[in-house]
Amino acid sequence: MQCGQTVALFRLELPVRWRDLDAYDHVNNSQFLSYIEEARIQWFGSLPGPWRDAAAEPILAAAQINFRRPITYPATLVIELQTARIGTTSITVNHTIVDASDADTLYSDGNSVIVWVSPQSGRPVPLPEVVRQAAERGL
Amino acid sequence: MQCGQTVALFRLELPVRWRDLDAYDHVNNSQFLSYIEEARIQWFGSLPGPWRDAAAEPILAAAQINFRRPITYPATLVIELQTARIGTTSITVNHTIVDASDADTLYSDGNSVIVWVSPQSGRPVPLPEVVRQAAERGL
Amino acid sequence: MQCGQTVALFRLELPVRWRDLDAYDHVNNSQFLSYIEEARIQWFGSLPGPWRDAAAEPILAAAQINFRRPITYPATLVIELQTARIGTTSITVNHTIVDASDADTLYSDGNSVIVWVSPQSGRPVPLPEVVRQAAERGL
Amino acid sequence: MQCGQTVALFRLELPVRWRDLDAYDHVNNSQFLSYIEEARIQWFGSLPGPWRDAAAEPILAAAQINFRRPITYPATLVIELQTARIGTTSITVNHTIVDASDADTLYSDGNSVIVWVSPQSGRPVPLPEVVRQAAERGL
Repeated sequence: MQCGQTVALFRLELPVRWRDLDAYDHVNNSQFLSYIEEARIQWFGSLPGPWRDAAAEPILAAAQINFRRPITYPATLVIELQTARIGTTSITVNHTIVDASDADTLYSDGNSVIVWVSPQSGRPVPLPEVVRQAAERGL
Repeated sequence: MQCGQTVALFRLELPVRWRDLDAYDHVNNSQFLSYIEEARIQWFGSLPGPWRDAAAEPILAAAQINFRRPITYPATLVIELQTARIGTTSITVNHTIVDASDADTLYSDGNSVIVWVSPQSGRPVPLPEVVRQAAERGL
Repeated sequence: MQCGQTVALFRLELPVRWRDLDAYDHVNNSQFLSYIEEARIQWFGSLPGPWRDAAAEPILAAAQINFRRPITYPATLVIELQTARIGTTSITVNHTIVDASDADTLYSDGNSVIVWVSPQSGRPVPLPEVVRQAAERGL
Repeated sequence: MQCGQTVALFRLELPVRWRDLDAYDHVNNSQFLSYIEEARIQWFGSLPGPWRDAAAEPILAAAQINFRRPITYPATLVIELQTARIGTTSITVNHTIVDASDADTLYSDGNSVIVWVSPQSGRPVPLPEVVRQAAERGL
């Protein structure tokens, strides 16, 4: 968006469904997290190696999200992920949601912290190498 | 939670539904926003006067949410709202989600910014008086 | 409802959530299946023995549902399950959704066919004994 | 599917979202109704005239749905609507859900009854002419 020089980690084009609306006739706020989740999971699925295994799985630790303008139906969205920060056991991802027919129509921006944890202990574990490398290319 | 002296704006007891789970067998992250929305709307509904009319309606402008531990099924939750800040056209509300059977089990905390806007222009308008008074009692 | 002499397999009282509404300001049709699912899963959970194991798990094979009148918010519902038919590998369950404050307000009725299958082969397997016994008491 | 000579009222290609899954790692049964609803609403939107106005709006009166096989993620679906019956105030629509990459993979079939009613009285009113004509072409 604002800075053309950043590199997207992942871009997903996604059609809004009518059921995403709520009684105010706008896409419900909780749905924004589902859109971002769909981009995140498709990004993981696009990586050239395992992003989860028996010893490490990603969990969403925190999310901050700004609702910039209401999304109406019908619409096609573009959800874009960018690397904000790479830690030892976590990454922070910036995300924007814009309109597919007009990238200047910013519906939402924000960021999410994803931590890899041991499914057994729930304790943080080092980032999978394939995730770290992809995130570094997105810096 | 931490500070027994704070006053809750609103407390909602809510049963988790099985459909709130996702394929990881935990309540999905987007559902947390729906739980908080349910508490917010029931709080509005409990006010002794109009909290929206033809000239002013609330919209969610931003949310920050920490996912402290996974919620499994079955469970009954308590969602609690507290006043964080009162502005001219908006309020910021802190929210916690704990287990109804054990208030020390903190599933989530965070805050949300709610702005009153004109449905016509989309521009911010002053808080309804009934909202301001309720929020002040919660300070 | 109509016939006071039938025995309920299970009754669930469930509050409607605001997010269950769609842009028509009524509970969305898909949500009715989630309400019935919640009653079914709580019924299974109430049985005095295993209703699924490594060799047999229930799947929904078919559902028929009538939408008798719109559900608005707020409301508390009662979902009631009754045995319609017991087969070798499946049961058919009748379900009604009424208003908790007025059992004559029928929102929906219909029925669902639940088949127990082998998770490995996907082929039907005999009903668990605990399910058969509970369903027979509901006849 | 089986009969190549039938004419589709509408065909929608729709990507499954990860959030459509439930804790059994399959698309949840309620989601099937949302898929069919999305096709129905896009069909209405494609009509060359008004399908609802101040005097007549469509409501879903009944649905019958068979769950033929589980839908896993990722997948792209094709939802197809066909005219089953045209009444004075209602239409019955057959619907199938197949895999976009293999039309022989039938996930679901069934039918829905849609009635046009007066928003004021809730009583049935004649089908909008644009709906009748479209449905007749689909016979």
